[in-house]
Amino acid sequence: MNIVDIILDKRYGRELSDEQIAFFVNGVTNKTIPDYQISALLMAIVLNGMNEREMTTLTISMADSGIKNDLSYVGGIAVDKHSTGGVGDKITPIVLPLCRTFGVNSVKLSGRGLGFTGGTVDKFASITGFNIDVPKEDFPRLVNDVGMVISGQTPDLAPADKVLYALRDVTGTVDSIPLIASSIMSKKIAGGAGAIVLDVTCGSGAFMKEVDRAKELAVAMIKIGNLARRRTVAVITDMDQPLGLTCGNIIEMHEVYEVLNGRGTSDVIEVASNIGAWMVKLAGKNGALEGESLVNECKARIMDGRVLNEYIKLIKSQGGVIGSNGEPVYQDECNMVYEVKASQTGYIGAIAADVIGHASVQLGSGRIKKDDEIDFGAGISFEKKRGDAVIEGETICKLYLGSKTKLVDKTETIKRVEQMVLSAYKISSSKPDEVCAVIDILGV
Amino acid sequence: MNIVDIILDKRYGRELSDEQIAFFVNGVTNKTIPDYQISALLMAIVLNGMNEREMTTLTISMADSGIKNDLSYVGGIAVDKHSTGGVGDKITPIVLPLCRTFGVNSVKLSGRGLGFTGGTVDKFASITGFNIDVPKEDFPRLVNDVGMVISGQTPDLAPADKVLYALRDVTGTVDSIPLIASSIMSKKIAGGAGAIVLDVTCGSGAFMKEVDRAKELAVAMIKIGNLARRRTVAVITDMDQPLGLTCGNIIEMHEVYEVLNGRGTSDVIEVASNIGAWMVKLAGKNGALEGESLVNECKARIMDGRVLNEYIKLIKSQGGVIGSNGEPVYQDECNMVYEVKASQTGYIGAIAADVIGHASVQLGSGRIKKDDEIDFGAGISFEKKRGDAVIEGETICKLYLGSKTKLVDKTETIKRVEQMVLSAYKISSSKPDEVCAVIDILGV
Repeated sequence: MNIVDIILDKRYGRELSDEQIAFFVNGVTNKTIPDYQISALLMAIVLNGMNEREMTTLTISMADSGIKNDLSYVGGIAVDKHSTGGVGDKITPIVLPLCRTFGVNSVKLSGRGLGFTGGTVDKFASITGFNIDVPKEDFPRLVNDVGMVISGQTPDLAPADKVLYALRDVTGTVDSIPLIASSIMSKKIAGGAGAIVLDVTCGSGAFMKEVDRAKELAVAMIKIGNLARRRTVAVITDMDQPLGLTCGNIIEMHEVYEVLNGRGTSDVIEVASNIGAWMVKLAGKNGALEGESLVNECKARIMDGRVLNEYIKLIKSQGGVIGSNGEPVYQDECNMVYEVKASQTGYIGAIAADVIGHASVQLGSGRIKKDDEIDFGAGISFEKKRGDAVIEGETICKLYLGSKTKLVDKTETIKRVEQMVLSAYKISSSKPDEVCAVIDILGV
Repeated sequence: MNIVDIILDKRYGRELSDEQIAFFVNGVTNKTIPDYQISALLMAIVLNGMNEREMTTLTISMADSGIKNDLSYVGGIAVDKHSTGGVGDKITPIVLPLCRTFGVNSVKLSGRGLGFTGGTVDKFASITGFNIDVPKEDFPRLVNDVGMVISGQTPDLAPADKVLYALRDVTGTVDSIPLIASSIMSKKIAGGAGAIVLDVTCGSGAFMKEVDRAKELAVAMIKIGNLARRRTVAVITDMDQPLGLTCGNIIEMHEVYEVLNGRGTSDVIEVASNIGAWMVKLAGKNGALEGESLVNECKARIMDGRVLNEYIKLIKSQGGVIGSNGEPVYQDECNMVYEVKASQTGYIGAIAADVIGHASVQLGSGRIKKDDEIDFGAGISFEKKRGDAVIEGETICKLYLGSKTKLVDKTETIKRVEQMVLSAYKISSSKPDEVCAVIDILGV
């Protein structure tokens, strides 16, 4: 077999055989195929597509390219969840303990944040003492103790995907449904998932800007999941404004604590209880509850302290410190440094979540380059969200910095961030139509 | 400017600006753009195409990427010719002296053969004493003496094209009209051509198998030529069987000598006189002759010894030895080693020229790898060509080896070549329709 022939086949729009795809992934993993041939094939895939069988083979080949986790110690079907990325996304810290209240155990491998979307691992890392690099050997013990583990991705999962991902980033081949879908699904399968609930975000803060494209991606992943014999459900969620009231690290973990104390906003509760309900359902622990009543039961548990109880257990089990008030203790403070005021009167029509995400990164809450250090205290809180009425001069956002901020040009950065936030908020004269946080559920 | 944005623009089917194309070619030349980004962009160009302006800018940028020849010493418009490749193509040794009989001087930079198409430079190199690596400083003197120079390509012409060409070969991006057209035209322009006559071959032995594709390539090059202010004419020629009666090196130069002694086959004479006529016309040396009468005048000069006279001058001027019989002396002999016999009775319907080309390379007449040594005496002569009647057992081809053949498994190679030749010859029960050697002329 010859890589040039494989490139030519895809270039001429032909279907690749399972053997050709396996040969390619093998060559990527073993570094026997040079980057310039990989990138030529990636571009041909981007432009000529892949059918379901090809995507599934690509996914499984990438999953098989490294070590695969065996999660049998979780008991029953190990359900994983994955979000395609968003701003203010604090769903994982809520759904893991939520599932646990139904007796569903989870091992969650999560990435660090890069670019404008935050990383779940960074949010947990902002809790004093919390160990995010749990050795794999400790997973079974933690699952046995509290039914949950959250840890940074181990580097040996789907190494072929890692090579392709890095190359796609610099060759204009990121935005491709077969490549995105196979990348996500390969990591889930290598991670040991027996079933998968996908949070496919769409809107300004998501990779997929349009609902149709988000659904297309969701359908591709569901098909791959089903062909790979992993029951897969996709919840399409709105990311046309940040989720909840905050974005950052400590500030978001504080919001999680508020949510679990019955003071959450409806969008966060809606998304978390739908994702959670499907995780419980796919794990087969939903008992007599189905559909709306299962979702409502999830909401109730989020509100009434049952999820909080499990959440605190999770934090403690990985070394996180809980304060005398019952809330986790964080590594830093969030110092409010500036209030962004509305420049006109009207209704908030939209909040460009990507711009907000970038603004927050500017304050220090995220990474631009892989090795950037994070300011856990940095972030933004939203005083006004879509649909809210606002009067000129009223505060729409508050900006926060940690006490250990590394910003050298603080005043200038704040000014720049203010401008970004103002450009993100679209104020219109009429109240916008309401948008549900959960747009659709596919694969049910 | 950023190469990823350029890749993305082409990926999404957008037109690249002149600045973007120049940035790309610059980065290719200076090696500041890594191969994996170059190959991603090449694949995007292959699949999303380029318009005339983009192709022209790519051509001119590549031509400008290295030293450009100044051919003003040629006098008047320096007309270059280029063939898109074929088997048995011996047109250049005929048209250079043909043009000279009209007072048209030529500097011909030509490539060595690689793969199944032979190289003009190798054919001249098979003449004893003939210097094919003429120092550029000697060109004006030779033009002054005999009006003609033929030399191997200097390595500094269009270096960006060299990089792209090598990469295209291993990334499945060879077959692309914008990339082929810009590659050819950039070398012609860098070589100093003021006008260009293209021999665009089509058929089994050509890059373009179909007449329509050949015309498409021709039109692209004509448009580039005109936008780059180089009058360009394309002669579409048949390569659905080898040209003339031989393929190899010495054996083809011997055929050239025969042609110039009035014993040429009609296909060679037809193609040479049409190409030559257009070169003379574009150089403005056609006097009162136009069209058919100019072509006929060319034919007459090929037949009556006037072209032979100039041909011998060219050979001598670059050190080639002429024997006492008036023919050049060659570096080796062509020893006939095998006669391939027809396996059935009928008419020769077609001769797959690519298969014949590969068969000849197997005998040693060409290179598979760049550094392979050539057996100047190796080759094939065609005893039967398309349309000829043949009886089972009659000789259709003769195979030749030089006295210095490097073949270790001579008998086995000959057997293999025999099989290739037999598979190349299609024998049918009815006489095939006649095909003109010159199919069309575009850009006139």
